[in-house]
Amino acid sequence: MSPIKFSVEKELSNNLGRAGVLETPHGVIHTPAFVSVGTKAAVKALTPEQVKSLGAEVVLANTYHLYLEPGAERIKSFGGLHKFMNWSGPIMTDSGGFQVFSLGAAYGKQVSKIARGQQNSYFLTRQNPTGSDEDKNSVGTLARVEEDGVTFKSHHDGSLHYITPEKSIEIQHDLGADIIFAFDECTSPTEKFEYQEEALERTHRWARRSLEVHKSKVNSKTQALFGIVQGGREESLRKRSAEFIGNLDFDGFGIGGSFAKEDMDMAVKWVNKILPKEKPRHLLGIGEPEDLFMGVENGVDLFDCVAPTRNGRGGTLYTSKGKINIRNAEFREDTGPVDPECKCEVCKNYSRAYLCHLYRAHEMLGGTLGSMHNLYFIINLVKRMRESILDETFLKFKEEIRTVERRL
Amino acid sequence: MSPIKFSVEKELSNNLGRAGVLETPHGVIHTPAFVSVGTKAAVKALTPEQVKSLGAEVVLANTYHLYLEPGAERIKSFGGLHKFMNWSGPIMTDSGGFQVFSLGAAYGKQVSKIARGQQNSYFLTRQNPTGSDEDKNSVGTLARVEEDGVTFKSHHDGSLHYITPEKSIEIQHDLGADIIFAFDECTSPTEKFEYQEEALERTHRWARRSLEVHKSKVNSKTQALFGIVQGGREESLRKRSAEFIGNLDFDGFGIGGSFAKEDMDMAVKWVNKILPKEKPRHLLGIGEPEDLFMGVENGVDLFDCVAPTRNGRGGTLYTSKGKINIRNAEFREDTGPVDPECKCEVCKNYSRAYLCHLYRAHEMLGGTLGSMHNLYFIINLVKRMRESILDETFLKFKEEIRTVERRL
Repeated sequence: MSPIKFSVEKELSNNLGRAGVLETPHGVIHTPAFVSVGTKAAVKALTPEQVKSLGAEVVLANTYHLYLEPGAERIKSFGGLHKFMNWSGPIMTDSGGFQVFSLGAAYGKQVSKIARGQQNSYFLTRQNPTGSDEDKNSVGTLARVEEDGVTFKSHHDGSLHYITPEKSIEIQHDLGADIIFAFDECTSPTEKFEYQEEALERTHRWARRSLEVHKSKVNSKTQALFGIVQGGREESLRKRSAEFIGNLDFDGFGIGGSFAKEDMDMAVKWVNKILPKEKPRHLLGIGEPEDLFMGVENGVDLFDCVAPTRNGRGGTLYTSKGKINIRNAEFREDTGPVDPECKCEVCKNYSRAYLCHLYRAHEMLGGTLGSMHNLYFIINLVKRMRESILDETFLKFKEEIRTVERRL
Repeated sequence: MSPIKFSVEKELSNNLGRAGVLETPHGVIHTPAFVSVGTKAAVKALTPEQVKSLGAEVVLANTYHLYLEPGAERIKSFGGLHKFMNWSGPIMTDSGGFQVFSLGAAYGKQVSKIARGQQNSYFLTRQNPTGSDEDKNSVGTLARVEEDGVTFKSHHDGSLHYITPEKSIEIQHDLGADIIFAFDECTSPTEKFEYQEEALERTHRWARRSLEVHKSKVNSKTQALFGIVQGGREESLRKRSAEFIGNLDFDGFGIGGSFAKEDMDMAVKWVNKILPKEKPRHLLGIGEPEDLFMGVENGVDLFDCVAPTRNGRGGTLYTSKGKINIRNAEFREDTGPVDPECKCEVCKNYSRAYLCHLYRAHEMLGGTLGSMHNLYFIINLVKRMRESILDETFLKFKEEIRTVERRL
């Protein structure tokens, strides 16, 4: 008996899109939904009250970060993540697989350089884009993959750690999220097919092990486990992975990996045509406005991404006419709201000029208000997609947004 | 006809303390009250909604900072500070006199060095303690005082600016706060008596000029002007200043200056015995817990200080048993609230361990929650003093707090 219940309310006839309801032990998520990222048990610059007020139904924290600091056992001793971070709604935790490879590999180098990826090649990732040659070469020395698990260096202090699928599940049981993920290996798209295949087969064995240890614990009654489909940009591998992972007794599925943006829709489509329709699917680490329509019409139910809050802290704000950098001098005299079409509290109460002033004056409140606006914008965009699926206006809504984009 | 109305509800019989109600064009302030500081038109790390939720009735912004950035005329063109910063309650603006001397003087040096003052000699200040020899010497070169006004360098870019009493009032009229202050010179306590006297006489002439230009404008119907009493640590000068400023047609009074902490209570007492009882008094830049009882029992109605939010961002949190540094390792396992006796939302919802984690993980949310707690703590401490005046338990309440302090 799964601790979550997912029901599809409506399916689109001309593509894979659907609207559903996902019931978790800590409340309901109306899908498709954007999951706010709270990497270190905090959505950056926002209180849980603020996150909730934006319409967020669920947050995602990171196993890798919390394992290193403050430690999963400590969070367990405090009654779990919900209590620790004062979020009473549904919580997800990523398995840490992605961070072990991207952040662990980055230790001792300029993390940002690795994390940013190559110019002009956007990579589908979780949390941080990766996939540069530098990253690929360094994985061998800083995160050693063996059949049993991965040895990696902490990006904090270089200390050595060893994570196996069993260990990842144990940590996630300590953290106590409603939805947790199987431990996987996220390869670089620059790897050769042979390595992609080898890594995928290992990820599949790790998925089985994750599932097995999870099912043997009482936590499986209160925490749902999602398997992760990998396979990079290779159609044969993606399909093989969707078949394999989709046939295991997971409560839902994550779609992971790093591959070129132009391949993303195909990969998601291959996978979601195979995954069982009655279980929820989470496209890991994706949430830029332009990617959300693609995901939804290809059958994705859940998205997460640091972009709204990261952009918000940096002053890059979403509007219905594209992104703006609110620090720009042109906004110093602008009495209008960030986005005239937005109904968030920031757009209701503050001018572009005030936000421009806050960022220029290095006031933390700028990052807070910018994050609030961006998060509301993205959460609400996905909500409107959901509504348009329910009232059968999805394609019209998509066309409206595209028309605006084309005009820019 | 003053745009504000002040009524004393109750006076203490054995000292100068009193509880009152101050009605302003944007709402009521129950005195004694702590005024939250929003230097650059933002209470640092907090939204106005959060500030309001802490029980704050009034905020104070800084003329010097807002004149330099984003500019007073710009704020005026946006409909004034209330609208610009989305604070619908009462607002005060400091005249900029203190900042012209402390920050202007600090340009090109390490501001923090000057601002911190000398070890073991706490100076009564507005916003930033000052008064080191270095400061005193540099004033001559970086802020030139003449009879008409002050030439100073911007702490941003070193650009030259000239402020007169008339200019300060004009800026404050543009900003549109409910209560504004006369332009004054805040001397260093290390200056000789002769200079203190000379500066005080000039401050008195500037007070007259501030009042004159204010009264000639229509803004005097909607903005109240407070005169500032100076005089450093000299009894004769403090009394002379209180007599002079107290006899002018100001709507209320500020007590400014920088002098040693141990002289503060005497200076406040000298001044408040002379100032007209029917008008409100604001002790500028003071608000550490230990100073508030002193101020209240010596007849102060309003306090402001950056300490609660500055300490909050840094992780120094107030508790009913003294200050703690929440970053300390001892709090990593502490499941209790910051202060078991505090009723704020932070103490209700979060553990010391969670806050410790946030600060150590460099999460902005730490500074936000720390600021919320500290601001609530101070605002509430002054509120409780007010209540204890009204129900005649002030001395008992003071003794309770002292007893706790002595036990530490």
